Amino acid sequence: MTERSHSPLPNIPQSPYPKVVIIGAGFAGLKLARNLNKKKLQVVLLDKNNYHQFQPLFYQVATAGLEPSAISFPLRKIFHHSKNVIFRMAEVESVDTAQKRLFTDSGFLDYDYLVLAMGADTNYFGAKNIEFFASPMKTVSEALYIRNKIISNYEQAINIEKQENRRALMNVVIVGGGPTGVELAGAMAELRNNVLPKDYPELSFKNMKVVLIEAGPSLLASMSDEAKEHALEYLKKLGVEVKLETKVQDYDGQQVFLENGNKIETQTLLWAAGIKPNRINGLQDELFAKNGRILVDKFNQVRGLEGVYALGDICLMEIDDYPKGHPQVAQVALQQASALAKNLVKYEEGKEGEPFKYKDLGSMATVGRKLAVVDLPFIKFQGLFAWLTWLFVHLMAILGVKNKLLIFLDWSWNYLSFDPSLRLLIKPKYVRASERRELIEEK
Amino acid sequence: MTERSHSPLPNIPQSPYPKVVIIGAGFAGLKLARNLNKKKLQVVLLDKNNYHQFQPLFYQVATAGLEPSAISFPLRKIFHHSKNVIFRMAEVESVDTAQKRLFTDSGFLDYDYLVLAMGADTNYFGAKNIEFFASPMKTVSEALYIRNKIISNYEQAINIEKQENRRALMNVVIVGGGPTGVELAGAMAELRNNVLPKDYPELSFKNMKVVLIEAGPSLLASMSDEAKEHALEYLKKLGVEVKLETKVQDYDGQQVFLENGNKIETQTLLWAAGIKPNRINGLQDELFAKNGRILVDKFNQVRGLEGVYALGDICLMEIDDYPKGHPQVAQVALQQASALAKNLVKYEEGKEGEPFKYKDLGSMATVGRKLAVVDLPFIKFQGLFAWLTWLFVHLMAILGVKNKLLIFLDWSWNYLSFDPSLRLLIKPKYVRASERRELIEEK
Repeated sequence: MTERSHSPLPNIPQSPYPKVVIIGAGFAGLKLARNLNKKKLQVVLLDKNNYHQFQPLFYQVATAGLEPSAISFPLRKIFHHSKNVIFRMAEVESVDTAQKRLFTDSGFLDYDYLVLAMGADTNYFGAKNIEFFASPMKTVSEALYIRNKIISNYEQAINIEKQENRRALMNVVIVGGGPTGVELAGAMAELRNNVLPKDYPELSFKNMKVVLIEAGPSLLASMSDEAKEHALEYLKKLGVEVKLETKVQDYDGQQVFLENGNKIETQTLLWAAGIKPNRINGLQDELFAKNGRILVDKFNQVRGLEGVYALGDICLMEIDDYPKGHPQVAQVALQQASALAKNLVKYEEGKEGEPFKYKDLGSMATVGRKLAVVDLPFIKFQGLFAWLTWLFVHLMAILGVKNKLLIFLDWSWNYLSFDPSLRLLIKPKYVRASERRELIEEK
Repeated sequence: MTERSHSPLPNIPQSPYPKVVIIGAGFAGLKLARNLNKKKLQVVLLDKNNYHQFQPLFYQVATAGLEPSAISFPLRKIFHHSKNVIFRMAEVESVDTAQKRLFTDSGFLDYDYLVLAMGADTNYFGAKNIEFFASPMKTVSEALYIRNKIISNYEQAINIEKQENRRALMNVVIVGGGPTGVELAGAMAELRNNVLPKDYPELSFKNMKVVLIEAGPSLLASMSDEAKEHALEYLKKLGVEVKLETKVQDYDGQQVFLENGNKIETQTLLWAAGIKPNRINGLQDELFAKNGRILVDKFNQVRGLEGVYALGDICLMEIDDYPKGHPQVAQVALQQASALAKNLVKYEEGKEGEPFKYKDLGSMATVGRKLAVVDLPFIKFQGLFAWLTWLFVHLMAILGVKNKLLIFLDWSWNYLSFDPSLRLLIKPKYVRASERRELIEEK
């Protein structure tokens, strides 16, 4: 624990209202804070970053289709007109639920309600080598890293004489056949088919492989059979090698070793195969399910801990309709946040809360530049119209008129020119000399 | 020298034409390569980055007005349709002018013509502490660093209780009263006046200083008296503390020590006070002037070295009109590149070259959101119309329709909303574990 965490977090205005502290400004935390705007509660929203990240489009950043800023939203700006909502960039260290006190790297906060909405991080299922060498994609920063890595691989490949020595630099292997894996594979294949050959006329792209590996028997496990089949068909059309019922055993940074004995040469292994909830110190072990999710009741209250709630990917609500908990998707996080916002207001009015009920609005995934699969409760469809639906739904979900405009401009441009223009290797190369020294001392 | 530099740079196509190797894709190098498109010469353009950087707008990136990608242009894309131009991302190591061979970190290149266009870097004039603690702004990466530093300072300041302990985090000091310093100071003052108070309502911005320090007797030394006076007046109106005839003696990362004995508390010292040409190994000492510029004749040929040329900031052409050389500005670089392109074609046709003649098209600088000063050969003007002129000229100079559109959208948005929306602290936080290890081993 840092020294600072022993004094209160400074500059929190006095308020006559009970204090709601929300950890994490993902879909759940942000929605809750917005819905509590102008309610008789003081809301303190904490996040490691000063922006909200729109996860569904990370794959576009990784494949040079969108700028990080187009899908990142400064949190302070969102709350300019919300006087009862305060944002703080801070790292949470631990919670003392008996004292109702949260410790952060900048001071502690006493809460009346605490909401855990820290989401999930990449799960390597204990595979240390994969964790060490593979690239995850759970933050904008990680997505940007992938973009830079791929461009940098090609700039290296062109300086290598022999085709066989270029293979590991040129191949891309994606693990995980969920929406993220499918979308990444589609976008990578389109880069290979249409964009990279124009940039690197000296290289042959016939030999560049885009491989998608999934341990289960189908892609998009949670979607309909029609969606599964169409996604597979679309990916194959784009030239993606899809390997179902295939498990990755090991990876040494140059070769992926499969359980069936085969190997694939690649320096770029993108890992989208699993997530694990982020932890916070100070909660007892029995509050966690085996998979690390926090057990909550129907009101999203952490079991037995009055005033402490958990939302979204991080929580596990075992109810009749979903005995293994809800799917870890944005829709659940958003709906739980709305429900909790209403309940908190009710509690303050001395009323009882309403139990959470999930309304499945359907799911969708895009494959490449103009195809998608869409499952709605009443209809399933695929193809170009599905892609337009996907585009519209995501554009509407994006915060801010300017970002909508920017993304629309980017997408229209890419569609018309077939030439995503963000192939910039703007590395964070520059660090001030004094901080370079600090960096070395830290290590 | 690396091992690789002892074998030829691979994958350079065979060509019947003489080879022009250009080092640096700044204003000069890029212009030359573009003007040699479809000429009977094979052009190899080298740069450390895979993009061209539009320096005049770095200050907009530093002050959260523009995204790095809006002023960075992928070089490969620029040359998609230029079959005789090859781009390579490489670090140049040295030149052997006797052998006509250039060594890079990826192999060597034999040239017929070599063009040095590596530009200039920040000059601290030997002040080691300043170099260690101050922030330069000669690359997009450095400009992005400044943006992140300022936002991060404010996120820290809000977690500090006492006003006096926040001062060093909140003050910004800029050294150098040239166009870069003036533009940075104006944009910083507007952030302070209009944007930051909305983001950080808990902090008082009355005490935040924006200081511009210039050693000489006026700002914008190379411009007209009207421009100098108006720039000073505009900056003062914006609340910038301008200190003329003031020299910085030392800086310890917390306080700037002035020669007159005064001190200013700041963690943010932006250094725009001087440049020094980038060097290349292998050229004899007598080819350099005292200030590090390479001595060239009227044809931009390095003195006494046939087939070797230097363009732009890096070169010094002592002629009657400019006995101390031309100003180190974009216009000179661009005009020298055009002249050399014509001359190289003439040389190949067995003709004589034309000596370079600089046509001064004037200069301009912007101060804040809607004022500028413009000196043209035939007229000088200031104010809003000057700002519109500045806007138009820079928008036209930017490469690419999409970037023009993006910048226009950004600017219109900022102007209408008075709220630059790029206040994102997207740090290059993520580095793959395997590379973190490499990084540590390197150090």
